[in-house]
Amino acid sequence: MARYYLSKTDVEDLVVGAAILGTGGGGDPYIGKLMVLQELERGRKIEIVSVDEVDNDAFVVPVAAMGTPVVLIEKIPSGKEALFSLRLLENYFNRKVDFISPIEAGGINSTIPLVVGAERGLPVIDADGMGRAFPELQMVTLHIHGIKATPMAISDERGNAAILDTIDNYWAERIARVITVRYGGSAWIAIYPTFGKPYKEAAIRGSISLVIEIGRALREAKSAGKNPIDALLDVTHGFELFRGKIVDVQRFNIGGFARGEAVIDGLDDYKGSKLIIRFQNENLVAIRDNEIIASVPDLITVLDSESGRPITTERLRYGLRVLVIGIPCNEKWRTPKGLETVGPRYFGYNIDYVPIEVRIKGVSKP
Amino acid sequence: MARYYLSKTDVEDLVVGAAILGTGGGGDPYIGKLMVLQELERGRKIEIVSVDEVDNDAFVVPVAAMGTPVVLIEKIPSGKEALFSLRLLENYFNRKVDFISPIEAGGINSTIPLVVGAERGLPVIDADGMGRAFPELQMVTLHIHGIKATPMAISDERGNAAILDTIDNYWAERIARVITVRYGGSAWIAIYPTFGKPYKEAAIRGSISLVIEIGRALREAKSAGKNPIDALLDVTHGFELFRGKIVDVQRFNIGGFARGEAVIDGLDDYKGSKLIIRFQNENLVAIRDNEIIASVPDLITVLDSESGRPITTERLRYGLRVLVIGIPCNEKWRTPKGLETVGPRYFGYNIDYVPIEVRIKGVSKP
Repeated sequence: MARYYLSKTDVEDLVVGAAILGTGGGGDPYIGKLMVLQELERGRKIEIVSVDEVDNDAFVVPVAAMGTPVVLIEKIPSGKEALFSLRLLENYFNRKVDFISPIEAGGINSTIPLVVGAERGLPVIDADGMGRAFPELQMVTLHIHGIKATPMAISDERGNAAILDTIDNYWAERIARVITVRYGGSAWIAIYPTFGKPYKEAAIRGSISLVIEIGRALREAKSAGKNPIDALLDVTHGFELFRGKIVDVQRFNIGGFARGEAVIDGLDDYKGSKLIIRFQNENLVAIRDNEIIASVPDLITVLDSESGRPITTERLRYGLRVLVIGIPCNEKWRTPKGLETVGPRYFGYNIDYVPIEVRIKGVSKP
Repeated sequence: MARYYLSKTDVEDLVVGAAILGTGGGGDPYIGKLMVLQELERGRKIEIVSVDEVDNDAFVVPVAAMGTPVVLIEKIPSGKEALFSLRLLENYFNRKVDFISPIEAGGINSTIPLVVGAERGLPVIDADGMGRAFPELQMVTLHIHGIKATPMAISDERGNAAILDTIDNYWAERIARVITVRYGGSAWIAIYPTFGKPYKEAAIRGSISLVIEIGRALREAKSAGKNPIDALLDVTHGFELFRGKIVDVQRFNIGGFARGEAVIDGLDDYKGSKLIIRFQNENLVAIRDNEIIASVPDLITVLDSESGRPITTERLRYGLRVLVIGIPCNEKWRTPKGLETVGPRYFGYNIDYVPIEVRIKGVSKP
């Protein structure tokens, strides 16, 4: 569909799918859902348009929340905070925005653009800059296509604001991160302002429709009495990586990120085996019995074994029975520039990236 | 004089006087001097105008360096870095600046506005926002008169920049401070943009002329074979507090400030006595044998006993023979709002402010 309006069911499906692609990060999807449903209940429309509907000279601005996702559980947002940053950027450019875009597919950052679109009556582009969630500002396909993150606006819920203009996107990340920490752990950003033509080349297409489709597949499988995990792996082209019980979770908020690891003891087919998942807002690597079996930029998602619901990193806790899946990332991330930006070495792992579909073949099932 | 141009001798005198009022902070005045003299050697003029020459609707912007002064010894500035922040603010307001102002009287921040004025051909107002140096952005008489620090521009020597717009001046300090730290310890700011009318009510008048007069008094006393310290105390209405040898200096850069203390063993009349000076960029309190004998907002300045030269906190070192003087602060700081902003309690000292001229009477000379 080139243009469509979101239904309540779409929103329900979207937040489930966004949490799957969010790979543990992006904040609690249920808070995001409440924000969007509130807009629909007020009679506002949320229009999704395909990338092809965007004129080459249209002014496109992605909006998002930034920071440690756990903070958003404490400071529940109204969803309108990002509007403030969008307006700041419009004032700075002295130009109205034509299209809103998500910057990532994951948790709250899949829903913030919908709230802003609803509030402003602006269409939201069916695309994003990651096809998943990542922790840092330069980790977007817009960056690898040469689009500047700045001028960007960054504000807090009190009304503090800044416009940043940095020499490169890594500096945008550094400065925005310390501001986010000083704001109290979360911030609202309007970033990577650009025009239709470069946006269309750089963005990952169809992200909103994909997350809705993922959520729908899970829902329909459940209501049809089918195995929802099979449906999920089918729609995402994913792989089951592990099943087990969480026996330890370590966390430390460092430098404005939720870092840590979860240790999972194998159950069923995986009995006697141990999986460690390391995360920085998002899940980065899955290490089974000292062997890396999946890594960024491929997606690693932890699901509740019983409900099939995705579990964000801040909700990981001792005793949860979980299923871990891996999903191949978008091809843009598998290029040299993509891997330089979000490959395992960038995150400090001294390994080459091996696509998950290749890795999984070498892993012996117990 | 309502308007005059700075001579080279004025500049020589100014940096000495600025270091005296800088109370240990504000960076090395000799770096500042080189920057200004270079402008004069290139044939540029530096025009100083009295506050009365400023129209009520003139656009006035103070410019300054921000950060840990010691960093400026490592990263010697060209003096033009602050121009970049000024231009950012002009673009933001879409209005050209009419007058440059110093924000503090001390070290490099007395000379930065002169360089910017020379480069841009703009007059510099004979005033400032402190009548001395202080470590935080809200510690200016413009703040206590209700002028907003933001919109402010903050840039680094690489070309990174931000425009901040905060809900109050304390938030401007907090956000600008973390950005300064992330920039590497020093930043260049254009701040407290305002109009002539509020500026004239809020600023401390005659600061540039005063620092030149202080430097001149010292120079003339020396060349006339007179005691330069007597001349200094006379022109500043100051008091001798202590003479001795530095026996210990502790420093720690915390939160973007150069904090620490110096311990001085008494000599001559002060033999057997010990003075501790605590600083946060600037000297904050002088404690003699466990009794506070001078505190912010009054000025505490350490001079080299032999040369009579002021010593900035980053140059304090073991073995130096020093003379410590105290100078009464401007009356604006002795108001309730002034003391709330820069009194000893703000800096964590649980004492009431007592004006130095009152304190000094109670101190028994040994």
